Amino acid sequence: MNIYGQHYRTIWVAENNPKIVQIIDQRPLPHDFIIEDLTTVQEVARAIKDMHVRGAGLIGAAAGFGMYIAAVTAPKDSQTQFIKAVQTAAETLKATRPTAVNLEWAVNRQMEAISQVEGDYTKKIQAAYETAVAIADEDADSCRRIGQHGVTLIEEISKQKKGEVVNILTHCNAGWLAFVDFGSATAPIYAAHDKGIPVHVWVDETRPRNQGARLTAWELGQHGVPHTIIVDNVGGHLMQHGMVDIVITGTDRTLYTGDVANKIGTYLKALAAKDNNVPFYVALPSSTFDWQHRDGVKEIPIEQRGDEEVRMINGLYNGQIIEAFLTPQDSPAANFAFDVTPARLVTGLISERGICAATEKGILDLYPDKR
Amino acid sequence: MNIYGQHYRTIWVAENNPKIVQIIDQRPLPHDFIIEDLTTVQEVARAIKDMHVRGAGLIGAAAGFGMYIAAVTAPKDSQTQFIKAVQTAAETLKATRPTAVNLEWAVNRQMEAISQVEGDYTKKIQAAYETAVAIADEDADSCRRIGQHGVTLIEEISKQKKGEVVNILTHCNAGWLAFVDFGSATAPIYAAHDKGIPVHVWVDETRPRNQGARLTAWELGQHGVPHTIIVDNVGGHLMQHGMVDIVITGTDRTLYTGDVANKIGTYLKALAAKDNNVPFYVALPSSTFDWQHRDGVKEIPIEQRGDEEVRMINGLYNGQIIEAFLTPQDSPAANFAFDVTPARLVTGLISERGICAATEKGILDLYPDKR
Repeated sequence: MNIYGQHYRTIWVAENNPKIVQIIDQRPLPHDFIIEDLTTVQEVARAIKDMHVRGAGLIGAAAGFGMYIAAVTAPKDSQTQFIKAVQTAAETLKATRPTAVNLEWAVNRQMEAISQVEGDYTKKIQAAYETAVAIADEDADSCRRIGQHGVTLIEEISKQKKGEVVNILTHCNAGWLAFVDFGSATAPIYAAHDKGIPVHVWVDETRPRNQGARLTAWELGQHGVPHTIIVDNVGGHLMQHGMVDIVITGTDRTLYTGDVANKIGTYLKALAAKDNNVPFYVALPSSTFDWQHRDGVKEIPIEQRGDEEVRMINGLYNGQIIEAFLTPQDSPAANFAFDVTPARLVTGLISERGICAATEKGILDLYPDKR
Repeated sequence: MNIYGQHYRTIWVAENNPKIVQIIDQRPLPHDFIIEDLTTVQEVARAIKDMHVRGAGLIGAAAGFGMYIAAVTAPKDSQTQFIKAVQTAAETLKATRPTAVNLEWAVNRQMEAISQVEGDYTKKIQAAYETAVAIADEDADSCRRIGQHGVTLIEEISKQKKGEVVNILTHCNAGWLAFVDFGSATAPIYAAHDKGIPVHVWVDETRPRNQGARLTAWELGQHGVPHTIIVDNVGGHLMQHGMVDIVITGTDRTLYTGDVANKIGTYLKALAAKDNNVPFYVALPSSTFDWQHRDGVKEIPIEQRGDEEVRMINGLYNGQIIEAFLTPQDSPAANFAFDVTPARLVTGLISERGICAATEKGILDLYPDKR
């Protein structure tokens, strides 16, 4: 999407030097826009581990490009040494975010691509390059198609409202910054905006890490999409007063029964949507489906993170990004990172394959290959 | 309640000098504990206006003591000048927070007390002193009785759980810092704790002004009540997992039909409580009832405050309380201060008169004088 009027992805190979991979360093956003060069596997690993890049789709793409950098930088003295270096890189990259499914998948795909090519190093490097680009392109294309399907929902509301602004509420950042381009929850919004449908987005700030206020607001603003930041407490009030036409969120894991795990607080917005007859949609690439588990609340383990994310906050002070302390010194804090929204509260799911009900039947009708 | 092991109220006359009123300056809490001397009407007015003190009960008490200071400092040359000074003080105090009902009520009560006394200035000052103390004592007593009634709910849960810790969730600060002592929502909690019933409080941080993380956590901690701070997104997850036994909040206005206006986000917690069969109670002194309106969502106007409360945050940095910027420079923010929880989501109300259902019948049975 656009930044300062120019099209960007979240990761790419430098135009003038194919040995450099470039990313948007997401840590200082929205206060600073910094493009970072990655030229070694260690730099890519650190970028993933320390969350210069984050989000399932983007982590996968970064791992793909990391393996390309591994091939570029591996010693070319012997076949054995080359393969050994690439294998070491694979282990290094996999260890950065052990629970990120896309990361392991991308690394394995690269290992296969690199080892299957016969011939000299140039050909192996070329294969790694093509695979990295393919992983990124596939991610972007998948999100683009989520947008194509999801935009029909916004178009329908726009028609019902006779062209009045369609108000969309979203939680956390399921935007293009979490993928290679377009995003998941934001893809239908960007598609509507780019088609000239008037939209306005209520952006939940999404405590404790403020991905909404920091990232979603920034990317919407840069692309020119009208939006307003609200604290996480506000959505229910807006829905009571007819100020939200549709909720669209992303998800970290969605069961084939329709239960949705997503950023903490999503469940509360889904309850309010249900109570006020506001449609509640979840956008996801197919890779986010969990085909094993049936009961989200009982079966999905919820990560607890450090209490410092609740007790401190990052912000800009005197031109510097600092961390301020918010709570009494002696008060403990708990930090549950996700919650589960039961399928009964979810109106539908939007994937790159289409839109379906958040029910076992609805999902398996769209994915007959999973029956 | 206790601070550093010593009993405090939020406002009192200095022990060694009856011409000084003292308050806890609540602005630097929880980072600094500062007692402020008030010796002029202007100082009292500024303390109310700039929120050194806040909360319906405490604002009323501060206005009462402000009128006492007015009598102490008024010129004693002539009856006319004395009364004129007291009247000017009354107008000054009333103008500080024009929508605070208790403020006007306390000032008027003082005007009547002062003007009804016959005789010299000493007697009028004595009447003003006694009235100020009476207003404060009545507020504290009312909260104490809310505690006596509300503690029965906690005792009942404690029995059902065979003495296991009772987990209570609260939102915002309806604690003793908002009143003279005990608080409204916290009164049953302090009563239970002081009786030796094991309790633990989940404290919603309550964005955007963080009254939970700053004030509720601090006052619970100072009184020794076990508690954990959570971001506002977490309560639903806790209730899904049986980690909340009862929700108790305060209210800014409760209709005689049972609809509850309270700090933004209360409605979302009430929805989650209903969805998980967790009892949801609202504690209030009788003065908070609105006997005029029937439909909270339609009829209660919701204050919108400045966007800087969403875009900036107060915190401690390098030993200083600073304001940090959280959002993109160009992203607008909206700041709705309250929401309305419909009566159907409220299990019951706790006032100094007792506990009743949040229905017109339940409320009027407890207040037959309002029929």
